[in-house]
Amino acid sequence: MVEPANTVGIPLNHTALLKDELDIVIPTIRNLDFLEMWRPFLQPYHLIIVQDGDPSKTIAVPQGFDYELYNRNDINRILGPKASCISFKDSACRCFGYMVSKKKYIFTIDDDCFVAKDPSGKAVNALEQHIKNLLCPSSPFFFNTLYEPYREGADFVRGYPFSLREGVSTAVSHGLWLNIPDYDAPTQLVKPKERNTRYVDAVMTIPKGTLFPMCGMNLAFDRDLIGPAMYFGLMGDGQPIGRYDDMWAGWCVKVICDHLGLGVKTGLPYIYHSKASNPFVNLKKEYKGIFWQEDIIPFFQSAKLSKEAVTVQQCYIELSKMVKEKLSAIDPYFDKLADAMVTWIEAWDELNPATKA
Amino acid sequence: MVEPANTVGIPLNHTALLKDELDIVIPTIRNLDFLEMWRPFLQPYHLIIVQDGDPSKTIAVPQGFDYELYNRNDINRILGPKASCISFKDSACRCFGYMVSKKKYIFTIDDDCFVAKDPSGKAVNALEQHIKNLLCPSSPFFFNTLYEPYREGADFVRGYPFSLREGVSTAVSHGLWLNIPDYDAPTQLVKPKERNTRYVDAVMTIPKGTLFPMCGMNLAFDRDLIGPAMYFGLMGDGQPIGRYDDMWAGWCVKVICDHLGLGVKTGLPYIYHSKASNPFVNLKKEYKGIFWQEDIIPFFQSAKLSKEAVTVQQCYIELSKMVKEKLSAIDPYFDKLADAMVTWIEAWDELNPATKA
Repeated sequence: MVEPANTVGIPLNHTALLKDELDIVIPTIRNLDFLEMWRPFLQPYHLIIVQDGDPSKTIAVPQGFDYELYNRNDINRILGPKASCISFKDSACRCFGYMVSKKKYIFTIDDDCFVAKDPSGKAVNALEQHIKNLLCPSSPFFFNTLYEPYREGADFVRGYPFSLREGVSTAVSHGLWLNIPDYDAPTQLVKPKERNTRYVDAVMTIPKGTLFPMCGMNLAFDRDLIGPAMYFGLMGDGQPIGRYDDMWAGWCVKVICDHLGLGVKTGLPYIYHSKASNPFVNLKKEYKGIFWQEDIIPFFQSAKLSKEAVTVQQCYIELSKMVKEKLSAIDPYFDKLADAMVTWIEAWDELNPATKA
Repeated sequence: MVEPANTVGIPLNHTALLKDELDIVIPTIRNLDFLEMWRPFLQPYHLIIVQDGDPSKTIAVPQGFDYELYNRNDINRILGPKASCISFKDSACRCFGYMVSKKKYIFTIDDDCFVAKDPSGKAVNALEQHIKNLLCPSSPFFFNTLYEPYREGADFVRGYPFSLREGVSTAVSHGLWLNIPDYDAPTQLVKPKERNTRYVDAVMTIPKGTLFPMCGMNLAFDRDLIGPAMYFGLMGDGQPIGRYDDMWAGWCVKVICDHLGLGVKTGLPYIYHSKASNPFVNLKKEYKGIFWQEDIIPFFQSAKLSKEAVTVQQCYIELSKMVKEKLSAIDPYFDKLADAMVTWIEAWDELNPATKA
């Protein structure tokens, strides 16, 4: 049985990397006791807490953490009519935190994620690994069989073109989960007892042209490079679908990263995912997505952005038009989603006015 | 320091998987003492030894191994004028062994590769893992973040399309190396002391559309599915290039696997690679390849086979025409190589006449 690490006794990380350039975004409906375990690693950073559900409820945040908290009333006040693009009663609301941040980097984590142990028993500083991933280049154009070529003790292997070894900027670092794996409801139902105990000591670039299922549970990204594409869509209250918020963002992000020549990494760091969500509830949220993704994924696999799309915003608006044109036939929901994608970009630009260089 | 496993005391594997359906191909110029260490795992299998260099030299094979051995005289006798497609004084000659085999599966290994230990200290049965890889499907059309979805304790993660979970047949299993990594000469020169000590407990499918540097040191494949594409080219004696035999095969194989909907896996198993080859000698063999690969790789990345090419042979002949047309401008060598590709297929078909179903 994999158990989370015990971080008691680990001194506070006073040399926290990128302390002033990174915000931690946490969507929640409950008290943030889980932060106690993360204290040695996360306390130096600023938190943006997006409170979902009833705004009159008070969320307790452990002493000593520096944070700002937004509930639904705040979102409505700040965005006005554009608040319609932010989901309610779904962790998709977290993307509001990406929008209000003013930092270059974002780390987002779910409140049922704890500190994992590596095979030596050491507590994994997930954020530190995400930062390493984001600060080192990606290699999306050719596969390196020894995984991350920039890691200590590794390199590009024989036959790797030298012209590609400089790599490209990394926009996304996708971390994994020990204990409860991120399975869909059908797999949860079929394998209720399966736990992920395999610690794979690797980071790798997802090749150009390959889509992946991006999970929002343990995710970091460069907001300057890809922020406006990190929209978690319309999920939860009043929507026909849930649990596809991060998937939607992942498909859009990967297509745009491929177009703009940016890298997406996956692998380390692991977090310890403690709580399996209810598979019956999940099935209800997911079933349309399970059906729809059979068409959505080929759509994204063949999506080609124009040469004129050179900013993330331009790419995203182009994608929204393609969604409206090609996916609305599946369900009117996609028409609404395409509109929300445009609203999201408008809101993003309003809160993040372009600064002249 | 990583050390090879000590296999003394491991009982002979009497339940060897696919014992009658797999040949082990070893190119060599020396006595095969390295097989002693592999005895518990490899003795049940039939070996095809391809003796390179001076045919008058006698190669000693440890007692108890069942083998056939071919030297240059044998190759010339069997293939006649078509023997020109088989390299001399280069381990590329190993592909002759693929051609004369009558089995469904091939495992090929270099004679400086020993049994690796996994992190628990257990000797790794590389062949057993290769067989597992080959017998389980591949998933080239979408990335699974928990790596091999068919492995015990793993599965497809949330967001993986259900229609793709059946996977496709696996044609190639590419294993890795502890200790001496497979670096090119420049990297060897720059990092003479680098050793690979990282055991990454993963197998993964290389996504469709992504090329990789295939190393021939520790490689297995399904001869029925991809054999005729496993041509290791013209290297060594009389050729302007060496150490690109496996790379050449890997580019061709991957393009053809992608076209035919077959899978290529990489990762486990590790072998322990004992001996760093001389970087100065390697540089002399490699330098044209290092230069040429900058053009060859884009060529393969954009190579599109026709719908009419439905067998590996047809695909390979199409590729040979494209090589002649597009790569001969780099160097007359590619004109010769394109011809050798055709000769190889002719020789393959001669030794492996089609059997009517």
